[in-house]
Amino acid sequence: MNHLTADDELLDRVLLTRVIEPGDEIGGRWVREYGAGEVVRRLRGTRGHALPGVGEKRWGGLRARARRAEPERDLAVAAAAGVRFLRPGTGEWPGQLDDLGDARPIGLWVRGRPSLRTWALRSVAVVGARACTEYGAQVAVGLAAGLAERGWVVVSGGAYGIDGAAHRGALGAGGATVAVLACGLDRPYPRGHTQLITRISEQGLVVGELPPGDHPTPSRFVLRNRVIAALTRGTVVVEAAYRSGSLVTARAARRLGRHTMGVPGPVTSSLSGGVHELLRQDAVLVTDAAEVVELVGEMGDLAPDRRGPVLPRDLLEPAAQQVLAALPGRGAAAVPEIACGARTTEDDAIARLYELRALGYVERHGDVWKLTRQSMISARSDGRPC
Amino acid sequence: MNHLTADDELLDRVLLTRVIEPGDEIGGRWVREYGAGEVVRRLRGTRGHALPGVGEKRWGGLRARARRAEPERDLAVAAAAGVRFLRPGTGEWPGQLDDLGDARPIGLWVRGRPSLRTWALRSVAVVGARACTEYGAQVAVGLAAGLAERGWVVVSGGAYGIDGAAHRGALGAGGATVAVLACGLDRPYPRGHTQLITRISEQGLVVGELPPGDHPTPSRFVLRNRVIAALTRGTVVVEAAYRSGSLVTARAARRLGRHTMGVPGPVTSSLSGGVHELLRQDAVLVTDAAEVVELVGEMGDLAPDRRGPVLPRDLLEPAAQQVLAALPGRGAAAVPEIACGARTTEDDAIARLYELRALGYVERHGDVWKLTRQSMISARSDGRPC
Repeated sequence: MNHLTADDELLDRVLLTRVIEPGDEIGGRWVREYGAGEVVRRLRGTRGHALPGVGEKRWGGLRARARRAEPERDLAVAAAAGVRFLRPGTGEWPGQLDDLGDARPIGLWVRGRPSLRTWALRSVAVVGARACTEYGAQVAVGLAAGLAERGWVVVSGGAYGIDGAAHRGALGAGGATVAVLACGLDRPYPRGHTQLITRISEQGLVVGELPPGDHPTPSRFVLRNRVIAALTRGTVVVEAAYRSGSLVTARAARRLGRHTMGVPGPVTSSLSGGVHELLRQDAVLVTDAAEVVELVGEMGDLAPDRRGPVLPRDLLEPAAQQVLAALPGRGAAAVPEIACGARTTEDDAIARLYELRALGYVERHGDVWKLTRQSMISARSDGRPC
Repeated sequence: MNHLTADDELLDRVLLTRVIEPGDEIGGRWVREYGAGEVVRRLRGTRGHALPGVGEKRWGGLRARARRAEPERDLAVAAAAGVRFLRPGTGEWPGQLDDLGDARPIGLWVRGRPSLRTWALRSVAVVGARACTEYGAQVAVGLAAGLAERGWVVVSGGAYGIDGAAHRGALGAGGATVAVLACGLDRPYPRGHTQLITRISEQGLVVGELPPGDHPTPSRFVLRNRVIAALTRGTVVVEAAYRSGSLVTARAARRLGRHTMGVPGPVTSSLSGGVHELLRQDAVLVTDAAEVVELVGEMGDLAPDRRGPVLPRDLLEPAAQQVLAALPGRGAAAVPEIACGARTTEDDAIARLYELRALGYVERHGDVWKLTRQSMISARSDGRPC
């Protein structure tokens, strides 16, 4: 998606990410009922009749924000920082987010090579307390590493504590991870995680609803959690005190029909108190990655492991097709070899390999990658070689 | 129950506790179908036709045990050690044990002042690993103390580790506790708990199926657990490795329709592994005594807290009636004062007070005791003063 050829609806949605707060269901309803273009026209029009559901003052505030917005400039700033903008219903948009109804994001800013849509198909959220214990950090690292090793994408919020441990665990296992931020992607928060978030954007994906330059606020943190919950097949809470934000994510996941899971800890630790509360309600107790996968892996038609590729080879992006073609028909290959064959960088090859793995085309065995049996069968039935 | 006036059925059952192993359902069926007397006659008769369900060799072994048995002597040895023998269906027999069907104990040897029947009405098992961690011991002590403070009787197996911690927690809170042993009560096992078990027999109850002098065996430990599960309203497992004996107790509790509960711990601790496995099945996660009581307190008709005394005052044993009469009509009294008024020792007064509390007559407030409101109402409706 290139801003130079951006159509009006794209620009309207970019503008609206600066006007409508994340998760605002009134704004979401306007967009659904009137379309982004009409909402923008009303907000920017000289008379500008207020849309239903807000008072005169609030409407005035929104109009002021709309007047100040410069969507072309936002797209240019974003593109310069390697950030693209996704709209609902278009190619890379993860359909799961539509479950949020009128709280669905107006659009998503994304940085990183892989396709968010395909990664989200096979993802799990690992979230928890910022002020976590040594125990919680250790568990989050191990859990995320185990999920990554099993081909699952680890989604978290990029925060200190459990979130950071989860991202690091996935990266450390050479796996896939997505950070969903509550701010503009050009100013990642927290500052102390700048390096980590940069690494995630290089090896994985960084995602957010807010346009360049926007700062996080307490309510933006809370509403960001609904995106984490909706993107993933399930949410695991590792440590959380009572009334923790991670419990918000878990409850959102439950409302959305996703799996909610919790890792227990000592009952003497207040940081496990919130998790135990969740487990006494209807969350499932999990103690390792295998137990998480056992639960979220029940994907029915979408399960790539059992049913082979979920997307026909023709629909893969050209870059992914190239990497797939670089894998040997028999046996396995290491990343440098695959990157060389696909005429791309190793980082890009890794990202594509994880994307292909999420789709059921390839599998990882330690440091080498090979085609899945199902992938070879589907290639043969396509009537052409890998 | 005095052995000098013991009837034949009593003596027959005493004999059978030396012949039939705890939990042996074949022996239990014989007693149910033929009566204890007929089973003893067959075992001791000169020809002695084998009863159904056992081979010639096994029958010969049982006959040899029956010939060597000296039930009068067992009763005398027991009585000298302050141990009484309870038969099913008689006064102090806890009716819950009948849920065990043919695995119901032939009889129970009991040491201690309180009535096992009334204590069992309001009891919870707290069990767990012998080789527990510092964390597990700490949790067991706290849980047992909390249960005792809420008027619940803590039942456990007298073993090292979690069992010992549970008994100590209850005793330390001035509460009620029952040890169910897998050996003769005159030789408490483990040896290192002699002092603890003596203290339990002075302030609470020590119970077992095996006659004087009998030793524990691995299978006797396992089968003892069914008695703990059946006696109580629920079983809490504090720490247990995979394949731990405490899980046997919990599963027995579940089969008997009792509540099964587990206290979580670090997933990095193998001693919490068995508990987490249980919690992933159908046990309820509990983190403190209040949560246990919330669950087991749903007792329907038997709930003394909400419905007042469960036994009419006339049916109380005279010693319990005396202690009840020693409580002031208004306000509270301390144990020495009550013991003095009831003309008994403080230890006996404490035991009776807990018995009365289990029945809903009295309540404890720190170091003092007072009549419950319901108890005063029932006294008034009896037409006579406390």
